[in-house]
Parts: sequence; structure tokens; C-alpha cells
Amino acid sequence: EVEKPAEPPNMNHKCRCFCFIYFYFFADLLPASDGDIKTMTFLQEVVDILLAYIVESFDRETKVIDFHYPNELLQMNNWELQDEPATLDDILISCRATLKYAIKTAHPRYFNQLSTGLDMVGLAADWLTSTANTNMFTYEVAPVFVLLEYVTLKKMREIIGWSDGRGDGIFSPGGAISNMYAMLLARFKMFPEVKEKGMSSVPRLVAFTSEHSHFSIKKGAAALGIGTESVICIKADESGKLIPADLERRILEAKQKGFVPFFVSATAGTTVYGAFDPLIAISDICRKYNIWMHVDGAWGGSLLMSRRHRWKLDGVERANSVTWNPHKMMSVPLQCSALLVREEGLMQNCNQMHACYLFQQDKHYDLSYDTGDKALQCGRHVDIFKLWLMWRAKGTIGFEAQIDKCLELSEYLYNKIKDREGYEMVFDGKPQHTNVCFWYLPPGIRYMEDKEEKKKHLHKSSPLSFPPKKINHTPASS
Amino acid sequence: EVEKPAEPPNMNHKCRCFCFIYFYFFADLLPASDGDIKTMTFLQEVVDILLAYIVESFDRETKVIDFHYPNELLQMNNWELQDEPATLDDILISCRATLKYAIKTAHPRYFNQLSTGLDMVGLAADWLTSTANTNMFTYEVAPVFVLLEYVTLKKMREIIGWSDGRGDGIFSPGGAISNMYAMLLARFKMFPEVKEKGMSSVPRLVAFTSEHSHFSIKKGAAALGIGTESVICIKADESGKLIPADLERRILEAKQKGFVPFFVSATAGTTVYGAFDPLIAISDICRKYNIWMHVDGAWGGSLLMSRRHRWKLDGVERANSVTWNPHKMMSVPLQCSALLVREEGLMQNCNQMHACYLFQQDKHYDLSYDTGDKALQCGRHVDIFKLWLMWRAKGTIGFEAQIDKCLELSEYLYNKIKDREGYEMVFDGKPQHTNVCFWYLPPGIRYMEDKEEKKKHLHKSSPLSFPPKKINHTPASS
Repeated sequence: EVEKPAEPPNMNHKCRCFCFIYFYFFADLLPASDGDIKTMTFLQEVVDILLAYIVESFDRETKVIDFHYPNELLQMNNWELQDEPATLDDILISCRATLKYAIKTAHPRYFNQLSTGLDMVGLAADWLTSTANTNMFTYEVAPVFVLLEYVTLKKMREIIGWSDGRGDGIFSPGGAISNMYAMLLARFKMFPEVKEKGMSSVPRLVAFTSEHSHFSIKKGAAALGIGTESVICIKADESGKLIPADLERRILEAKQKGFVPFFVSATAGTTVYGAFDPLIAISDICRKYNIWMHVDGAWGGSLLMSRRHRWKLDGVERANSVTWNPHKMMSVPLQCSALLVREEGLMQNCNQMHACYLFQQDKHYDLSYDTGDKALQCGRHVDIFKLWLMWRAKGTIGFEAQIDKCLELSEYLYNKIKDREGYEMVFDGKPQHTNVCFWYLPPGIRYMEDKEEKKKHLHKSSPLSFPPKKINHTPASS
Repeated sequence: EVEKPAEPPNMNHKCRCFCFIYFYFFADLLPASDGDIKTMTFLQEVVDILLAYIVESFDRETKVIDFHYPNELLQMNNWELQDEPATLDDILISCRATLKYAIKTAHPRYFNQLSTGLDMVGLAADWLTSTANTNMFTYEVAPVFVLLEYVTLKKMREIIGWSDGRGDGIFSPGGAISNMYAMLLARFKMFPEVKEKGMSSVPRLVAFTSEHSHFSIKKGAAALGIGTESVICIKADESGKLIPADLERRILEAKQKGFVPFFVSATAGTTVYGAFDPLIAISDICRKYNIWMHVDGAWGGSLLMSRRHRWKLDGVERANSVTWNPHKMMSVPLQCSALLVREEGLMQNCNQMHACYLFQQDKHYDLSYDTGDKALQCGRHVDIFKLWLMWRAKGTIGFEAQIDKCLELSEYLYNKIKDREGYEMVFDGKPQHTNVCFWYLPPGIRYMEDKEEKKKHLHKSSPLSFPPKKINHTPASS
């Protein structure tokens, strides 16, 4: 065994007792130094550019993107970094050029993966966050934001259905990292020694998730040293929902081989079909075999805000952890992803390293608000304020109305397409989320008998037939 | 062995061939919906609040923070989330309250860990980033930002000294994650099978880092299933630099035990002392034993921008990977951390999961610009623009001047303190970075003979004697 590394003799004392001072210098050779008129004028000029861009983005008559190939875009502009400073006018030109070739994600005709739009309150909140320019690791550097994270996570846990909103959580840099946190916690819960001794101290662990789940489960397993082959993919039914009987069968199979099932990730809102796994049946199995149940609700978690749709997540309150990304269905600016955890204290125990220079134990306030040591990160970006401020502005019922309306629209599209000549739904039944999955069959292959042949042709024709920007079903136009 | 999970039968086809459409609805019952006058007025009102806050922050006569204990701050304000929407006026009040109790990180008298200040060009860039509200995973959703990341990473690699700026890299959510990436790559480079088969397929791996290194090395080892006990802490000399002879001794010791040394993390700018490990000597050892050499330059990497100080990182060009956080010494708004990697293609191979819904292989542009599949994350926040725009505004020489000035100031403080009655330097010799480490000895214990007794008293008195905000050595006052 490797000898325990010796603690540096007096580091603890040193960290706490002397002062280490960092100097910063905000170059006076440049105008960007302080609150003088020239600087303030510059900021206002940038704001004017941004406001004009926003107005333009919402105008459906403008282009969504002025598209150029990477090499073209590189050649058309001088993006190179120079030794010499540019003038503020040059900087404004750079800002305009950046926006000119950007994609207008707020545009009514913009469609892309899983996030879009630009909420004005969310935007204002993000501008404030940038201005505050701080870090989530301790209460002393982010008193308000730390409290707002506390309040918001508690509210989200209440909505999940954990009693009194008890539990833990963190805002992380995206759903993939939130899912990785969950896997890390599950492993630690079952084998706390893994933190010190690594995977070589534990039996072969296996995780389970549906074949339709997000690739981040495998990515997490690869990173955590579990390995992608130890993520067992469970069959989904025709509509994309995990089949509980197959889950149980595969768990038993794994146990027979001497492996230890430690983690099931159910998906609430799959990436492609928008399917919701049957959480109650899954949780019964997890309880029976004593396995951590995670719900990846990155995409579908927001349906918890809707009284009409939250039944699709029935059983989520039985989960040990839940990923929920307000930057998706709740249209909070990127990025904003929460991991909610039912057990208190586990995150801290799993991740803490007692960094004495940062998390001093002799501070004069309640240290439970220093959240840094439960994170994988050291510094952590402030992602909370935009969600909190939007929630204040809309209220829970505002989010609910927004979600309900989106789901109405997807049903509208479904009804329009399902019996339409030349279209074929990918699976029968109404969409569960806003994903509407269909094939367009060009006339040439519409009546082909050979299914394989047909599929091959479809494969080639569909991407060209459907550049997403040609489809426009935003509320205003429907 | 666990059976390889079956690929869902037609997912590849399905992902590429049908359309899945997401609906979003930007609530028309709320004013935050589009570019109308009311909305634009609201945004301008928020900007006015922010501009006033900035002017106030730079005023050294104002308070750095209006401090309240967590429970007080919770009670003094209604931060709760409600069912009903608030008015826009309420939202403005919330913005003001948030700033009132925030800590002014731009204040000349603000001191805290490793980041401070507010660069106006960086701020403007961050506002633009929020307005563009997009994601780094593909070129199609972030054409300009993806190119700017490409240009900037190449420039940073040139500065490190890799020929023609070749190599790879990514901006990640903070130095801890950058370091974790490095460890992940090192492991994959030596044992690519670990991705599929996990740690159980490889021998016992051990990593090495100095006893003064950042806690994220251990945190990474815990997360990756390596275990903190497999991080062997190497002795540092009195000034905080890793002792190469001890590194070699511990490597040999580990090999004798049958362990496989795979990763050495040298630190360029330790957190507390600001020490620079001897990179050339370390790289000789790494080459000799075929070990991945990482340089954690989260704090000190920026000294590469200074012709006067970059010798402290001599040998960095021999590293396999480098962490460099422009959000620290280069005062880019939080957060902005880069991992630079010498070998091209390794990140992609290590992390890719071929998510077909996102990284389609039949797009009509050069796919090498789709950076998402080399990341641990799926969606990734745009951290590049603030760095790029600041670099344009200052030029390389602007950053250099800023860094040189900061280091001059720390030397100034060192000279002021070292012979001063009642003060004692923690180690002999000039500071290498901006960390100036000293003890203040209150009169009562100044002449104590018993060193242990003295230390015990110091331990108690120093935190109270030195609330950091009382010390003020910003350029303008020195």
C-alpha cells in the first residue's frame, strides 16, 4: 500500500496565521480602469449595441444567421491577438462583428438542441452577475448569491416532493456534470473508502440506464474510472421508456456475475424521444436491490413546475438524486443546471478536501454557507441569480404557463402531422414532452415496399429535406 | 465480464434522419418577452443600476461590503420564491438589494483569494456573451466563439512554447476541472482501455505532486477513482518549491511496490507561497520514467506573458499539459480557465461518446470545429469572449505591464516588511509571485523564547490582527 502522504509540517498553522496578499493592477495605460466618464461611456456604447442586437433578434424578418464556413469566417475577419492594444473604437467594431456572425438564439426562427430564446429578466440578471464578478465558494465572497442558491435549491427540493425541502444540492456547469456528481455520490455512499483508496479497493461496480439515455452517463462512468462497459443499457419500449422488467433482469444477471449494481439513472425526458421512464416501477426495483436511484431530468425535470404534466415524473420523490436544468425548458440563460440530493451532508463528505486557505474553520459566521468544499470545482461560477430573478418575475405560475403552452404546441404539431400525406410518426402516441418525432418521406420513396431500402433512402434524404431553420412553430406564428 | 451493452437498434439512423422539434414559449403574460419599448426600458434601467454600482465600487471611500450574518440577511429581505409574478419594479428593487449586500469585488480595498477587480472591457464582453446566450458544443451554435477559442488557445500554446502553437485545449469551468482533465488524459494516454473497462483493468496508478500543491489534485484523484492515497505528496523546500530528488525517490519507491507512476503535477505558482516548482528538473525525471508531466499554472501561468518573469516557468514547454487561469492574474471576469494539451487528438479520443443527435457526421462544414465531444461536459458556457476581447484591448504588452506592475508591488511590500519591527517573513528571499507571506507578532509574544509556545499564540492572534480588508496596497495608493 502507498504510504499516506505526510502532511506538510505546519501548513495548517501557516494557512490560518499569516497573510498572503495578492496584488492586482488595473492598467492605467488603458481606459478600462475605473468609473470615469470615458469608461462609462464605453460601457453604455456596448449596451447600445446589445440592445439593438436584441431588437433585431426578435424581428422574424431578419436572418437567423449570416452563415460562413469556419475557414471563410477566419479569413473575413482579423480575429488574431496582437502585442499592441487596440483602441476602444476597435473594440466596439469587434463587438459588432462578433454579433454580426453570431447565431441569433433569441430569434423566433431559431431551432437547435434543447435551449433557445432569450428571457429579458434572465438576461438582466446575467448582466448583474457579471458585474458582481464573484465566486460561489464561500459566503464571504458571495453572501447574497449563496443565500439565493440556498433558497432556490430548497424550493426545487420541495417541488420534487422531499419533505420540507430537506436535502442538499448544487448548481453545476451543465447536466453532464450534474449526472457525474450523482454517480460519484452513489459510489461514495456505497463504498466511502473509494475516496481514499480508489476503485481498486471496491468490487466491480455496474450502473444501469436506458438505451435512450443521455451519453453523459457513459461519459461520467469513463471519467470516474468505472468504465463505459460497466454501464448496462436497458431496453426501452417503442415510445422510448425504459422497460422495468429488463432492468431487473439485467441487475440479477450482473449480481450473478459477482458485480455490484450501485447506480440506476432513470431519464425524465429523453434527448430524442422526450420519453419519461416509469419512475415508480424503477424505484421499487432500486429499493429491492438497494441501488442508488438517480433521475436525469435535465430536459424533463421542469415539467415538475406544471400541475398538468408533473404526473409524468411521479415517483421522482423516491429518487436519491435528480438532475434538473432550468436552462432548458425554463429558458434560463445558459448555463443553469442543478443537482438535487436527498441525503444531507453526503456531498460534503464525498468531495471535501479541507482546503485550509479557503475554508478556514475559525470564521465568525455559520460555516454551513461555505459551499465550496462540497463541489468538485474550487471556484464556481454564479449561475443562480438569473434563475432566481426569473422565478421572481414570472412566479411559479409563470413557468407553469410557459411549459403548458409549449406542450400544447407540440400536441398541435403532432395532430397536424400524424395523418398528413408523406409523413410518418416515429412512434405511435402523443408526445410526452415537446419532442415531436416524425419522418418526412419524399415522394420517390413514399411507396417503397422494401423497408430496409426505404430506410436507407430516408437516411440520406431527411437531413437535406429538413434544415431545422425552415420549420417555424413558435407561438406567435401558430 | 459485463456484456457489451447492445446499441439501440436504429438510434443512429433515427438521430440523423428525423426531426425532433422543441417548442419554447416566451410568456406573453410577462413583459420580458421581446424587443418592445417596455422591455428595452427595463433593460436600460437595470444597466443604469449596474453603472451606478460600478462607479460606487471604484470609490475607495465607500464600504467594501455591508456585512450581515447569513441568518440576518435571510431575515432582512424577502428572498423567497413565490407562486405569483412580481412587477418589474419589484425586480428592480431585487436587483438593488442584491447589489447592496454584495461584496464589491471591484473595490480598491477588496482582497480575497486569487481574483479581484473588474475590467471594463472584460465586463462588456461578458454582457455580450450573455446576450448571445449560446453554447460551445458545436460550430453551428457558436461560430464566432468557437473560432475565438481556437485562435486564443493556439496563441496560449505559442506562448507556452509549443511549436507553431500546435496541440489542443479547452476552456473549462475552473482550474480544478482543468487539472482533473489533465489527470484523465494522462491516465487515458497510458491505459486507453480504462475508458471502457475502468480502473479494474489497470494496475495501481499513482500520481505525484508537491505538498504545497492545490487540493484539486487530490479532489480529481478521488473523483476519477484513483483515490487520494494514490496522490503522493513530494516535499517542498523552505520556499515552497518541490524538491526533485524527493520526487525521484518517491517514484522509485512506488515502482518497487509495483505501482505505476502515471502523473506528475508540478505547480507554477502555489496557492499560499506563490512558489514555482523547478520545471526543467521535474521534466527530466518525467521523461526518464515516462510519466505525464502536468503544470498547474492556474495561478502562475499568466507570468508567461511577462518577458521579465517568464523564466520562472522555464521548462513549461516540456509539459504534456498546462492549466492556466486567465481569471486570476490576468483579471478576466470569472470564470476563465484553460487546459492546454501538447498532443493533438487525445482529448477527443479520451472523452468522445459519439452523441449522434449533436455531433452529426454529415454536416456541411469542417467538423473539427465541433469541440463538444472532447469535453467532459455536454453544453459548455462561453468563457472565451471576455478573455479574447480584453486581449485585443490591452494587447499582450498590456497584460505584461499589468503583471509586471503587480510583481513590483509585491516586492515593494516585501521590502517594507522584512526588516520592520514586529514582523517576520515566513521564508527568506524575495517573493516569486504576488504572494507576500509574513507573520505579524503582537508585542506580547514578540520576544517569547519558546518557539512552540510562540507559534500557538500567533495561531490565535493573527486572524484577528489581520482582517485582510485593513491592508491596502493597490497601485493607486502605493
